[in-house]
Amino acid sequence: MSTPNRIATLLHEGPRVLNVGVRTFATALAATGAPYRHVDWQPPAQGDPALGTLLAQLADDSTPDSPGGRIQAANAAALARILAADPVWEDVRPARELWPEMDDRLLFHAGPPIAWERMCGPMQGAVIGAILLEGWAADAAAARQLAAGGAVRFAPCHHYHAVGPMAGLVSPSMPMFVVRNTAAGNCAYSSLNEGMGKVLRYGAFAPEVLARLRWMCDTLGPTLQIGIRRLGSVQLKPLIAQALQMGDECHNRHVAATALLFKTIAPTLIRALTDREQAAAALDPISANNYFFLNLAMAACKAMMEAGHGVPHSSIVTVMARNGVEFGIRVSGTGDRWFTGPAGFPQGLYLPGFSQDDAAGDIGDSAITETAGLGGFAMGGAPAVVKVVGGTPADAVAYTEAMYGITLARNPNWTLPPLGFAGTPTGIDVRKVVDSNVLPIINTGIAHKAAGVGQVGAGLVRPPLACFTDALRALGEAVLEAESPR
Amino acid sequence: MSTPNRIATLLHEGPRVLNVGVRTFATALAATGAPYRHVDWQPPAQGDPALGTLLAQLADDSTPDSPGGRIQAANAAALARILAADPVWEDVRPARELWPEMDDRLLFHAGPPIAWERMCGPMQGAVIGAILLEGWAADAAAARQLAAGGAVRFAPCHHYHAVGPMAGLVSPSMPMFVVRNTAAGNCAYSSLNEGMGKVLRYGAFAPEVLARLRWMCDTLGPTLQIGIRRLGSVQLKPLIAQALQMGDECHNRHVAATALLFKTIAPTLIRALTDREQAAAALDPISANNYFFLNLAMAACKAMMEAGHGVPHSSIVTVMARNGVEFGIRVSGTGDRWFTGPAGFPQGLYLPGFSQDDAAGDIGDSAITETAGLGGFAMGGAPAVVKVVGGTPADAVAYTEAMYGITLARNPNWTLPPLGFAGTPTGIDVRKVVDSNVLPIINTGIAHKAAGVGQVGAGLVRPPLACFTDALRALGEAVLEAESPR
Repeated sequence: MSTPNRIATLLHEGPRVLNVGVRTFATALAATGAPYRHVDWQPPAQGDPALGTLLAQLADDSTPDSPGGRIQAANAAALARILAADPVWEDVRPARELWPEMDDRLLFHAGPPIAWERMCGPMQGAVIGAILLEGWAADAAAARQLAAGGAVRFAPCHHYHAVGPMAGLVSPSMPMFVVRNTAAGNCAYSSLNEGMGKVLRYGAFAPEVLARLRWMCDTLGPTLQIGIRRLGSVQLKPLIAQALQMGDECHNRHVAATALLFKTIAPTLIRALTDREQAAAALDPISANNYFFLNLAMAACKAMMEAGHGVPHSSIVTVMARNGVEFGIRVSGTGDRWFTGPAGFPQGLYLPGFSQDDAAGDIGDSAITETAGLGGFAMGGAPAVVKVVGGTPADAVAYTEAMYGITLARNPNWTLPPLGFAGTPTGIDVRKVVDSNVLPIINTGIAHKAAGVGQVGAGLVRPPLACFTDALRALGEAVLEAESPR
Repeated sequence: MSTPNRIATLLHEGPRVLNVGVRTFATALAATGAPYRHVDWQPPAQGDPALGTLLAQLADDSTPDSPGGRIQAANAAALARILAADPVWEDVRPARELWPEMDDRLLFHAGPPIAWERMCGPMQGAVIGAILLEGWAADAAAARQLAAGGAVRFAPCHHYHAVGPMAGLVSPSMPMFVVRNTAAGNCAYSSLNEGMGKVLRYGAFAPEVLARLRWMCDTLGPTLQIGIRRLGSVQLKPLIAQALQMGDECHNRHVAATALLFKTIAPTLIRALTDREQAAAALDPISANNYFFLNLAMAACKAMMEAGHGVPHSSIVTVMARNGVEFGIRVSGTGDRWFTGPAGFPQGLYLPGFSQDDAAGDIGDSAITETAGLGGFAMGGAPAVVKVVGGTPADAVAYTEAMYGITLARNPNWTLPPLGFAGTPTGIDVRKVVDSNVLPIINTGIAHKAAGVGQVGAGLVRPPLACFTDALRALGEAVLEAESPR
């Protein structure tokens, strides 16, 4: 269409407006009835000039040796390792066998490092429960005193290649899933899922919570150990791929994955155990707990993302984890440094009798699933999950589509049928997050803010931008420093 | 917008054309570059004046006693019974216990009635296999002679409240699922699924096929009988509802339903059987066969649709079934009469080494799933099924949306997440099919046309319109006759 015609069209039809950024202008147009389309946009780095300059420097991929060129090469290497990862469940072992130092009163927790005094209610509750489980104190008051007095040491699960949902407490007696990435040989670990409701990971430590944990230590763990050793291993990558065809997003929905896992191990367990009541009793809680697969999914994602960690100059986020007070990330090219910001509060659906006022801050290592492209990132393939976390199936698709904007690849092994079998958005690029101000979307459970209560709901949450701007600055220093000597 | 403005717009923008029906006009517009939108439409009853008049008469619902008024009331009653049906699996029994007359050399088959001479290759193959299984003949040639000589009687499964996939052969020794609709008390029956590949239902009768069938008669059936009797029952309506949230459409995709069923029965089987190898051996083939749930889904749908059958004046289709030569339907208001037309040939995906040339005609009672709103009707909720039957996820949604046009209700118990949790299209109205010429879409397996080969693919097929026009005429006679005495 030639220019005169365009002007004619404008005169006859009136303007058609594309409003970018500030919504106020669009509101004025709406008031006059003028047609417009609004595009959400914010200045890169929220208008911070120094960060904007850094982003521009790190985007320069004009040569292989320019900052952006080196980041690109590093990201390609990290992504190749992440996508090639082949996590298989191959064992169940007590935590003390994996980390003998734990018996020296060391407990693991979710998220970045945190001291007892700063821990939120549900994490303190879980610590009390873990101390009681181990018999280090006789009652809750004594456990509290022990923890506060410095007689118990704390470390993030992530410092030990491990992950734990919600409070993420791991104590030496607990059975742990051992998941090996057979492509690179690295292992990741996670605790076993306790079920829903009043459970340690949500901060509950009532007698029935401890009784269930003891049964898991004494019976479930050893039984599953016999089963998985007899079976050899279970490949988790194809199992997750199948579950994604079946409406799981593998963070807040594991109905399919748990059923597929059950079907895989049940015949072996039956044959491996002479005591058929022992086999049945080990299978019952898996059959009844649609979240049983969560912890295996987390370990699989941890094994996968750790394979891509530690590549100098890579801007890929390899850890997102929360301790209820702070949200922390780690980036492949900046090593083991945590970048933290205040934990948000999830928006979602509450169990009867609870509301947002009861909610603890965002908590748990389970965001490792989003870090690997599952959970909130894969919601478009799991429309039924909106019944748990809120929203509509259209919202779920929109979340996944938005995540393509801040990631570097589509995982060809994990596809989403409702999006025409598109691969899951994989490899969050710190630069893209800061540039677009689009923050990762995370599906999550919601714990009660007080110690000892438990779960109150589930919903969606985003990390604070500060994690990503700080990480970008640190990465920028490393990349630009590496350049300067020449 | 006022008329003068519309004319101004027309002059400035040119015409915008909606082309309804004949595509030729749209093609001419396309050639000139004029914008248009084409709407598929055909005259009611394909332009047949007598049928068109009948449709108009049967659409008249001006009073409760007008033909359309009486049909409407009858359909409401039938639909209420269909939607209230609560099919539960409650037993496994050998066919001869259910129908002792079968030992007098009676075999059931899929679809409407058919004699040996007119049976297609795969059905003749399955008959040969069934005769060998029962020991009525020593080899295939003798079995063929026996069948051709009239020494074996044949009857449709549907004449005995039963359903069978593909050839649908049932012989007296075979174990049958017993499914009771606890809302109305009626029972439906189906054989057990043999797995994929070379199997009797696809017309294969090789020694390994017969060996597997013998094991099903002697071991699997009795084992499942012990298990289900110990468990009491399995509610199939909520299980199917859950599977629909997990990407099954419950005709050609049962991955989720089979896993959920497995999870439900495994712990009971383990506890019920002292011989753990017996329990494991019964569970192995379920674990390995993603179609295991198909036959239970079929029996559930049969129990449900039979509850709505036999309501005078109801225009709801309660049976769609094929014998490989003819497609047959039954309608609630026309009793046990079959309305048949030539069976079509499915379009779909073929196993390596096979093509459309190898395909037998459309065959099997499994279209009872579509009759009840599953299968092709629920494809929109099961995008992954296109990997089996062909097409894209968008096609799958379009099929479900088209089926809303020929059905009377959305099943509130069975919802489809990708369609915003819309209920499955339920209750095919013969009038709507003839009026719109939109034929039901059916997901189906494809058998080799020769006896003894087996499955060659899976795809989509539609019934012939003749079934529906004939049924409409018969229904019309009954409804108008009932009116004339007054």
